[in-house]
Amino acid sequence: MSIKYRNLNPPSRLLLGPGPSNVDPQVLRAMATPLIGHLDPEFIKIMDDTKQLLQYTFQTDNYLTLPVSGTGSAGMEAALCNVIEPGDNVAVCVSGLFGQRMCDIVQRCRGQLIRIDAEWGRAVDPHQVEPVLKQFKVKVVAIVHAETSTGILQPLEDIRRLAHDHGALLLVDAVTSLGGCELKVDEWELDVVYSGTQKCLSCPPGLAPITFSPRAQKLLDERQTQVQSWYLDMTMIQRYWGQERFYHHTAPISMCYAFREALRLVYDEGLEVRWQRHELNHRALMAGLQAMGLRPFAAEGYRLPSLNAVWVPEGIQDAKVRGRLLQDYGIEIGGGLGKLKGQIWRIGLMGFNSTKKTVMVFLSALEAALRAEGYQASPGAALAAAQEVYD
Amino acid sequence: MSIKYRNLNPPSRLLLGPGPSNVDPQVLRAMATPLIGHLDPEFIKIMDDTKQLLQYTFQTDNYLTLPVSGTGSAGMEAALCNVIEPGDNVAVCVSGLFGQRMCDIVQRCRGQLIRIDAEWGRAVDPHQVEPVLKQFKVKVVAIVHAETSTGILQPLEDIRRLAHDHGALLLVDAVTSLGGCELKVDEWELDVVYSGTQKCLSCPPGLAPITFSPRAQKLLDERQTQVQSWYLDMTMIQRYWGQERFYHHTAPISMCYAFREALRLVYDEGLEVRWQRHELNHRALMAGLQAMGLRPFAAEGYRLPSLNAVWVPEGIQDAKVRGRLLQDYGIEIGGGLGKLKGQIWRIGLMGFNSTKKTVMVFLSALEAALRAEGYQASPGAALAAAQEVYD
Repeated sequence: MSIKYRNLNPPSRLLLGPGPSNVDPQVLRAMATPLIGHLDPEFIKIMDDTKQLLQYTFQTDNYLTLPVSGTGSAGMEAALCNVIEPGDNVAVCVSGLFGQRMCDIVQRCRGQLIRIDAEWGRAVDPHQVEPVLKQFKVKVVAIVHAETSTGILQPLEDIRRLAHDHGALLLVDAVTSLGGCELKVDEWELDVVYSGTQKCLSCPPGLAPITFSPRAQKLLDERQTQVQSWYLDMTMIQRYWGQERFYHHTAPISMCYAFREALRLVYDEGLEVRWQRHELNHRALMAGLQAMGLRPFAAEGYRLPSLNAVWVPEGIQDAKVRGRLLQDYGIEIGGGLGKLKGQIWRIGLMGFNSTKKTVMVFLSALEAALRAEGYQASPGAALAAAQEVYD
Repeated sequence: MSIKYRNLNPPSRLLLGPGPSNVDPQVLRAMATPLIGHLDPEFIKIMDDTKQLLQYTFQTDNYLTLPVSGTGSAGMEAALCNVIEPGDNVAVCVSGLFGQRMCDIVQRCRGQLIRIDAEWGRAVDPHQVEPVLKQFKVKVVAIVHAETSTGILQPLEDIRRLAHDHGALLLVDAVTSLGGCELKVDEWELDVVYSGTQKCLSCPPGLAPITFSPRAQKLLDERQTQVQSWYLDMTMIQRYWGQERFYHHTAPISMCYAFREALRLVYDEGLEVRWQRHELNHRALMAGLQAMGLRPFAAEGYRLPSLNAVWVPEGIQDAKVRGRLLQDYGIEIGGGLGKLKGQIWRIGLMGFNSTKKTVMVFLSALEAALRAEGYQASPGAALAAAQEVYD
């Protein structure tokens, strides 16, 4: 070949889609730290710090709490394939793409799938779950806390109580909620919870934080069959992350550096403060969007502070507006997925990006982009409405 | 909690174990580049560059050539679980830990395992493979090209020919060979080859380069059953890496940045030159080690240039010498794994670390560390022997 490859030089972006979000420069710098070995005594200390910080972030004392060496979807697969054995009844609550994905994985694990559907954009109602638990001996109820495809925040308490009353575990996808809104693994008695790093933790994608309650861990210990994935077999992985330090696979060192730093920033800010920050900026953004005449996709009380979904206004072409935002303003937002393609926008305010500055910059850019597409937005109304929330 | 977490500040290390190796500062800087989205048109260009550069590095035109979003072990699992369907006969050649790991994964994929064992530290002989292929209808022969646990370089040509003559695919673990010694996927007609990033490519761990020949791809297309792993399902992943750009999972953006940069450095150096560099420094190191009285573990002609295994001298305690190297000199080397624990040292000269400077520094440090443990090494003999190779 005689091609000349240019230096890596990606454009500067404000990442307000469904993730990745922008990463704090302190975390980026951590990524560039020279490597040490994955069995180095100094790396073991970094692992221990990371585990403690992750326990804090999940609000749990669970021993089996660590980052899986893959992105959030690897976390989903690790959660499911470790607790499911062939033939197990698994009830999956579906109200968006990620619930669907869980169904797919359950079947690949040869679990007996019992699917509980809610309309996309609505939360699953506990009354839908109860009859399933009465009819079947369900081992695991799986549910998405923060549905990244719709911006829905799913209440968990009643469903958790039902699951436990019927002897089932509750397995929770917290990819877009961890670090961005209230999530208390121990207090809420959640059994398996996984997440991603590139959403409200503002770390690059590449790890999947996960935690297993003692109840879930007991189930892992008592499995009759091997976990079908060697790479994601938690009983092997925990021998590396636990006291034994038994080699399983080479940890993604640089990602671990970044993850520890991202968690340290969460810890230094304090979770409660961080949740309030996400809530405030969410309210300001929504006020601005509504002042511009945009309709929220999710019902009030079920809106994720980290991911704001609104309907694309009638007569406006989704792709044109998103293209204009990207090309003219360097701003990425998300479109709809699956059956919502072209119909909604998903605007992330996650971690590092959940700031007043981001809200004001984005509202200005969106107003201009919409006006350029012929949409009638009353000039400045969005910014004024957002400012009112901050006042 | 009221703990104060220190800034990340790992010690400086010379990484001469079985990987990770030290990373070129240019690659580290790429890791710290601010993120763009995984569906951004500019990221698509980075993916395309990466794919081309990886095809060059693998010496292949295979369309299905990309990095899997996990470490080398995820590459092993992806390779096996995509080609194996339940009940398939899979012959695995075992001459070390990584061959053993393949057996474990084959069984988790519900393949019929036919195990072909060679003594650890020896290559598998084609004469061991032929009767198996005659007796069984074998779908896949799996073999480790560079056995990281023993430092053995496995010749592939005869076994590949036998496999193809009997209608089987050859699946190859090239974790420690890619970029460090001759490997020509197309010319050698290899069907599935995977590797890691943290060995001879001198990129941080976290991705697994993989390639499938058209023969292997046909097999994927004709599967009767779903791949048991959703995360590693290549037909879905290739829809994201191919023309469709169909969202599967969020790519580990920063790792992709680093990987593109690492591959660019391979390309700029040129593969042949890079292989020769590894060979030269390997010969110098081995000459030095032998002048010090250390015995090579692998037979001549079967030694990996990137990973040099020697017996721990009699009367010397493995852990003490390695501890001294780490504490006093900041140098990491590898010990033996499994049945070789405490018996061999594995000294990596991979990618960025395969230099004369590294060889000389290491030989000096080892000589001093051994002498401190009471071993009689004639002073300066190792350096002189190494220098002679360079002259």
